[in-house]
Amino acid sequence: MTISTLSTRHHQTDELNMDQIFAQAANNENISFGMGLPDDAIFPSAALAEAFNQAIQQEGATIFQYHATQGPLSLRQKIATLTAEYFDFKPSPEHIIMTQGGQQAIDIVGRAFLDKYDHIIVEAPTYMGALDAFDSYEPTYHEVALESDGLDMVQLEATLQQFPETKFVYTIPDFQNPTGVTMSLAKRQQLLALAEKYDFYVIEDSPYRYLRYSGTPLPSLAALDTHGRVILVSSFSKILSPALRTGWLVANPELTALFLTIKSALDVQPSHLSLMAIDYFLSQHRMADHIATIIENYREKCWLMLDRLAADMPAEVTFTQPEGGFFIWVTLPDTMDATALLAGPVLTEGQVVYVPSEMQYASRQVKNHFRLNFTGVTTEQIHTGVARLGEILQRQCAAIQ
Amino acid sequence: MTISTLSTRHHQTDELNMDQIFAQAANNENISFGMGLPDDAIFPSAALAEAFNQAIQQEGATIFQYHATQGPLSLRQKIATLTAEYFDFKPSPEHIIMTQGGQQAIDIVGRAFLDKYDHIIVEAPTYMGALDAFDSYEPTYHEVALESDGLDMVQLEATLQQFPETKFVYTIPDFQNPTGVTMSLAKRQQLLALAEKYDFYVIEDSPYRYLRYSGTPLPSLAALDTHGRVILVSSFSKILSPALRTGWLVANPELTALFLTIKSALDVQPSHLSLMAIDYFLSQHRMADHIATIIENYREKCWLMLDRLAADMPAEVTFTQPEGGFFIWVTLPDTMDATALLAGPVLTEGQVVYVPSEMQYASRQVKNHFRLNFTGVTTEQIHTGVARLGEILQRQCAAIQ
Repeated sequence: MTISTLSTRHHQTDELNMDQIFAQAANNENISFGMGLPDDAIFPSAALAEAFNQAIQQEGATIFQYHATQGPLSLRQKIATLTAEYFDFKPSPEHIIMTQGGQQAIDIVGRAFLDKYDHIIVEAPTYMGALDAFDSYEPTYHEVALESDGLDMVQLEATLQQFPETKFVYTIPDFQNPTGVTMSLAKRQQLLALAEKYDFYVIEDSPYRYLRYSGTPLPSLAALDTHGRVILVSSFSKILSPALRTGWLVANPELTALFLTIKSALDVQPSHLSLMAIDYFLSQHRMADHIATIIENYREKCWLMLDRLAADMPAEVTFTQPEGGFFIWVTLPDTMDATALLAGPVLTEGQVVYVPSEMQYASRQVKNHFRLNFTGVTTEQIHTGVARLGEILQRQCAAIQ
Repeated sequence: MTISTLSTRHHQTDELNMDQIFAQAANNENISFGMGLPDDAIFPSAALAEAFNQAIQQEGATIFQYHATQGPLSLRQKIATLTAEYFDFKPSPEHIIMTQGGQQAIDIVGRAFLDKYDHIIVEAPTYMGALDAFDSYEPTYHEVALESDGLDMVQLEATLQQFPETKFVYTIPDFQNPTGVTMSLAKRQQLLALAEKYDFYVIEDSPYRYLRYSGTPLPSLAALDTHGRVILVSSFSKILSPALRTGWLVANPELTALFLTIKSALDVQPSHLSLMAIDYFLSQHRMADHIATIIENYREKCWLMLDRLAADMPAEVTFTQPEGGFFIWVTLPDTMDATALLAGPVLTEGQVVYVPSEMQYASRQVKNHFRLNFTGVTTEQIHTGVARLGEILQRQCAAIQ
């Protein structure tokens, strides 16, 4: 039996994926700005250990048993409260579905809506994991450029006019992955008006919204939505622990039953033990206090990295100015290839890892950008790593003069 | 936006699914022979609590961080050893991929191989969760009848002659779900010979193999396979805890990279914390001792249920004689409908839950059987529940005379 019997969605198996980047990043010789890692220091390890203990003691053996696919109601109630606090609207716990990280929520949405060749719109660039998930359903991607205040609305409407059958727009409106860009209020309103006009859903993927370092929060798309067109995805991965693999969907009420059917087919149900441990943790600790601590840590690193980029990068290289989140997006001159640079001097000489732009565009064609993460590294690594990158890029830019 | 924009795989959303059965089963008024629940009493709660504690203390904060998609090597090594002990062959840990329960392993296989309308063969009846997973890829199902010693080999070869493009056969050779039937050695050898002749993969789903109450173990398909045609799926759900959501794939070496790419797109990676806790548990406890304890508990219940069925069922009702696992399969006269009976007297009068056959056939057409689980109930519930079922079925059978 040969590889030709695989499904058509897997005809290409040689693409870079997140796990491979992660493998490079996990090599301790390198300074990794690659993966979107939280700082180990932010994990409330002792409190989580205690929460696991308490949950097991107090719930008894039944905590190790099968439970409902949607996740425990008590946790969904706490997530509704957290959503009210950070997203300006309070969903019913009945419409919250626990998922295996935000990634599974994205996959569930893809599975619910997409037949082969269906039309969807994604930001250019966008979260590479979302592309991996959607790729499974072999959609027709339309990319809309991201500006410093979010999607290019002229291009978006032109795309919708040409492809009115578009099923959804997938967007990360706050501190976007990979660019760090935040969508303006005006564009949020325009996007929702277009959703109504052209009859599509908006997938609001928002794991970073809790982490604002400057500026004023804007209303979430879900809060502005008055027609049930927004499906919100969020997660504890960036604010509590990625290893707990706990994300959620806030579903349109009509879609809840379908999403649960899909979740059940994917992996039956979430880990009740992990969810109950988080539930116990949230009963005893104010999430807002914990988030405030994280923000202090990450704000310093964000501003330091912006400062060092300004100091060390050649004039031809530009970068975004995020007000929160995990990432800064760096743009090289058009003719430069960030993938080739990574495989060349950046890794071998600089021992620095970033995520090249190629894997962050649906087209897989745009090569002259890369994503830097600042949360998973020390301030010393930011100093050293940006200096090494700066030196290499100074040399590369000088060579193309 | 209406339901018509959903993907074609989800045109039917009103089917019974496992979660709905589980909701009925979770009603404490009822005696549930429905879901395949382990007995709460078998969970080594104190030892698992201690293992979580130790893992968090000894691994430090990094246990809450992102880790590799494949799962920790130390756990995969222990699973290789467990596989050697129970499946008669020792896989390389490099070819073991941790999954979110066995369910996700089945979904990964579907995603890897299936395009819409592709041909696959399943047992009739088969595990309803596997049908849910494969349904997502909209295959063409061919059902092959299950006899008391496994697949009907004449019908299997006839099906393969008619559909030589069949991509795989999905089978549960040991203590099959839902029938409890075990495939004979001769049929195992014939199945592998047919796989070679007709060039297909065999998905060996084997969560129950550890739990044999009588008779002699037969070699696993994976152990008999000399051509890399068997993909083995197993899980800790039935022998340790379902809430830990820990299963695995033993992949054909050629397929490992692809399966990892799919796992990454589904949910990035497993819960490192849960996997490390299991790893610590397995370092300190002999799994074989734990399994021996479970077998004692379940053997008594299995034999009791068989005894009570023999005593209480009318002569027209037959049932299988499993040598292990979780389930007994009951066959009613052809004209009777187990789904209607469940919704009628069985639930309302008998307050008993079973899984009707309808949802356990790819055709969704066969109605005169149901599945009984004996592991998740007490011996008293077996006495009472089977007596109530017997009374109802005596009456129903008398009525159709």
